[in-house]
Amino acid sequence: IDALNSHKSPLDVVELVLLFSFVRELENDPHFNAGKGSVLTNNGTVEMEACIMDGSTKNCGAVSGLTTVVNAVSLARLVMERTPHIYLAFEGAEAFAREQGVETVDSSHFITPQNIERLKQAKAANSVQVDYTQPISIVDEPPVPNGDSQIGTVGCVAVDSSGNLAAATSTGGLVNKMVGRIGDTPLVGAGTYANKFCAVSCTGKGEEIIRATVARDVAALMEYKGLTLKEATDYVIKESTPKGTTGLIAVSATGEVVTPFNTTGMFRACATQDGKTQIGIW
Amino acid sequence: IDALNSHKSPLDVVELVLLFSFVRELENDPHFNAGKGSVLTNNGTVEMEACIMDGSTKNCGAVSGLTTVVNAVSLARLVMERTPHIYLAFEGAEAFAREQGVETVDSSHFITPQNIERLKQAKAANSVQVDYTQPISIVDEPPVPNGDSQIGTVGCVAVDSSGNLAAATSTGGLVNKMVGRIGDTPLVGAGTYANKFCAVSCTGKGEEIIRATVARDVAALMEYKGLTLKEATDYVIKESTPKGTTGLIAVSATGEVVTPFNTTGMFRACATQDGKTQIGIW
Repeated sequence: IDALNSHKSPLDVVELVLLFSFVRELENDPHFNAGKGSVLTNNGTVEMEACIMDGSTKNCGAVSGLTTVVNAVSLARLVMERTPHIYLAFEGAEAFAREQGVETVDSSHFITPQNIERLKQAKAANSVQVDYTQPISIVDEPPVPNGDSQIGTVGCVAVDSSGNLAAATSTGGLVNKMVGRIGDTPLVGAGTYANKFCAVSCTGKGEEIIRATVARDVAALMEYKGLTLKEATDYVIKESTPKGTTGLIAVSATGEVVTPFNTTGMFRACATQDGKTQIGIW
Repeated sequence: IDALNSHKSPLDVVELVLLFSFVRELENDPHFNAGKGSVLTNNGTVEMEACIMDGSTKNCGAVSGLTTVVNAVSLARLVMERTPHIYLAFEGAEAFAREQGVETVDSSHFITPQNIERLKQAKAANSVQVDYTQPISIVDEPPVPNGDSQIGTVGCVAVDSSGNLAAATSTGGLVNKMVGRIGDTPLVGAGTYANKFCAVSCTGKGEEIIRATVARDVAALMEYKGLTLKEATDYVIKESTPKGTTGLIAVSATGEVVTPFNTTGMFRACATQDGKTQIGIW
């Protein structure tokens, strides 16, 4: 919150909030599916990915296939700021991380006993699983959070008093995903998107979110059809994506916040300025 | 064209047309930036990527970071059809290729003397370059093609008489790109997209195409704003992307074909049915 009042850009805020999440909630609490606690591939390894986007400039950065980088979202930001590219993946992303001197650890750091067990269960069931184990129920109201339901992708959106928006998402992907699998999180317009209308961060069954270009569609419905943020997100959640697959957090330039979803398992943080601050875990 | 009359699905057509392009134009003519003739990374290697999407079902498949696979677009289709995922990249994609038994060759097969020289020039200029060397000029009409201007990403869209649409794109990326760089081509909604309104395949400066979610935006303008294909593509090319960065080929469900661009360097093929057939190189 302090960051919001120190006149940093929304991108600074969103990253700070997300890093805050990482440091306090994830690295200290390995139950979140990002950084330490990332779910495992079918090979028992971690492959983390993240994306960050600044709505004012549409500058963005993304990474996939990270195995040793402690804060994936920070590396995504460095891709945005220090390369001619938007998106680096796997060995090239790891090499860039080393070149930039970001914090890295042995890959075993990210692997928890819980995720080894979860992979074992997924393999036994011969299934690729979204990063939480509750039965999926379609509800009109957000479910009451409990310990287990907090296991999930980390998403964050931010807006400042001038209406500048930013979004960031970080994840370990799906339990028992194939090695090399890329999900919606790092894909601009799928799992993460920001422009002058809104900032959106998604979670759920990544393949369905990619197919429906969820994050861009929320913004496109506002931009091209004149819908409000609530109307746009309701449309996408109810009409564009299959039930039980998609959740998101979004904020508009005026500070409206929505968190529609038909899944559980998302850590949500939203930061606005000037008395409209909202931040926390739902 | 035969394929169009044998009642195969659009996806069969689009892949056949693209593979046709590959086999005849690319593998025999290493001047196209896909498969053999792919431009080189800053490490002198090839990292090929591709995407395919079926507009009727929104099923899609994508691959990145291929180093030995002869037909990237065919592997993208296998990801779509034979995995629970949409997108596989780098080592995981290569492992999947071997598991599926698709044709692979030593990576040196893809590297041409021309691309070694082109990389040398790009390194000397300390620049990352789009896959053609002509000066970029903004024109209202497609430029007259010549030998050099045909060097580029391969894009293909298709529609059948029922209005079913499909799109595919394949590329080697940018000259002197960083190892690990992912461009717009494999990203659903950026370089490649199809739904019930249109099929779109893009080429150009991938980072700008990602930022503007070009392919999805063309479709979203039709879907959410009621624009025609021509109006939608004109808007995206003129309003959403910086000059000199973006080209595309698109076809609507009714068989309208447009190829707006402010760049050169795209091989374009479009296939429609029942007397509306258009196919060739512009």
